Amino acid sequence: MKRIVSEQNPAYKDLIRLKQRKTREREGLFLAEGFHLTEEAERCGLTIRQIYADDDLLESGREGGETLRAFLEEKEKQGCLITLLAGSLFAKVAETETPQGVIALVEKPVWEADAVLGTPGDGRNLLVLDRIQDPGNLGTLIRTADCAGYSGAVLLKGTADPYNPKTLRAAAGSLFRVPCIQLSGPEETLQLLRQAGKEVLVTSPRADQICYDVPMKENIALVIGNEGAGACDELLDGADRLVKIPMDGDAESLNAAVAAAILLYETVRQRYSK
Amino acid sequence: MKRIVSEQNPAYKDLIRLKQRKTREREGLFLAEGFHLTEEAERCGLTIRQIYADDDLLESGREGGETLRAFLEEKEKQGCLITLLAGSLFAKVAETETPQGVIALVEKPVWEADAVLGTPGDGRNLLVLDRIQDPGNLGTLIRTADCAGYSGAVLLKGTADPYNPKTLRAAAGSLFRVPCIQLSGPEETLQLLRQAGKEVLVTSPRADQICYDVPMKENIALVIGNEGAGACDELLDGADRLVKIPMDGDAESLNAAVAAAILLYETVRQRYSK
Repeated sequence: MKRIVSEQNPAYKDLIRLKQRKTREREGLFLAEGFHLTEEAERCGLTIRQIYADDDLLESGREGGETLRAFLEEKEKQGCLITLLAGSLFAKVAETETPQGVIALVEKPVWEADAVLGTPGDGRNLLVLDRIQDPGNLGTLIRTADCAGYSGAVLLKGTADPYNPKTLRAAAGSLFRVPCIQLSGPEETLQLLRQAGKEVLVTSPRADQICYDVPMKENIALVIGNEGAGACDELLDGADRLVKIPMDGDAESLNAAVAAAILLYETVRQRYSK
Repeated sequence: MKRIVSEQNPAYKDLIRLKQRKTREREGLFLAEGFHLTEEAERCGLTIRQIYADDDLLESGREGGETLRAFLEEKEKQGCLITLLAGSLFAKVAETETPQGVIALVEKPVWEADAVLGTPGDGRNLLVLDRIQDPGNLGTLIRTADCAGYSGAVLLKGTADPYNPKTLRAAAGSLFRVPCIQLSGPEETLQLLRQAGKEVLVTSPRADQICYDVPMKENIALVIGNEGAGACDELLDGADRLVKIPMDGDAESLNAAVAAAILLYETVRQRYSK
């Protein structure tokens, strides 16, 4: 195994640069931290270029070090390239509060827009995210879409980076399964969704219909808007239907990821009900 | 208005101590940060002992300073006590990333267990939280329970402090409306819920019934367990019913706050369906 001890090492510098969204986008690479995300990336068929491990933890004799050793031995057997980083170097790459000592350098999956959007009548549902800003919310949204059997996600410009470490963590592996494409504007998005035969549902407190009265079983594109401002006017005006979630208490609004979950699962419920 | 410039000021020291859970519990006080939470606390009838404001921001001539000035003038007219803190002192109390310059010192609402639990046949629903650890999750859970018209929440020992600043922020004011009581153990909890005539529903992936097949309209106590481990064995064994949420994709599980939202809103849906 290679070992890096200097911050001036070119490979280490490249690694540090991947903490920035623009580098991740240019290189088509991202970092998956921890055992679970590394395993999930592999299980979902993503290409792991390299596994970086915390050498100080590995040699510490602590319980975490033993777990890490067993993990790395297994990965080495499977042919993974492993590079050890001095503890202080690893700490600068890690983003979790209690790092497990492993970070995988992974190639982003490439999804074709046509394949993700599908074709009229294919029955598939899509989640459309308009400027979701909080990385954790974005991850939770993709995770819930995965659990609800949605086929893909469309991320409009202004939405957080799905390969942000916080997003990856909140998505708990779902980002490796749910195809995500990024589109620039609401007009392009509406046009492509129409071509794909989706009924565009946009959530809005101004809606007349509550979600339980709207058919959501199949062929829909469910639009969730920005945490503060909701969906943009173009999407609201261009929607096939506006839907709302009933509010029984005095609270003003639901958290965006929670609102989305209620709607995504309304699709599941309608599938289950006879 | 009083002005505090020294960290050694006894009132300031008391304020700093309220960042700790044990002080908040002993004193029956908490800190509500920002305009929205301060207004919500007042609107819900809580007693605001004092409002602390960032003197440096107030005098800065910046836009935020003007907004703060207008807010404080209104509060002063209403008879609120206002204390100005030097900017460096305010920064040590503030917990948000971009503070608005105002923190209210508020008396915790006192809820009687009997009143929160209610009586058999009163129709009210309760949310029961078993060791929810993430402060943000806890706040989101209470906010969703509020939106879904639940009457109260029961927090078992091991659950995060509802008056944690992150919890208060995620709850967006719902903690001032939804009565919360803390109970020590699962046995006591089950006994009290039974006495109050609640049907105890516990979420578990081992459940035979999916949530859409379970009556959840009224008189239920919905138990949500720890983010990693789920509900404890005593609650699982003592439940009247176990319920699960169907999983359509390959993901292993939903985020705890999301799972709870789907179940809390199943109550709303059943109320809306004829």
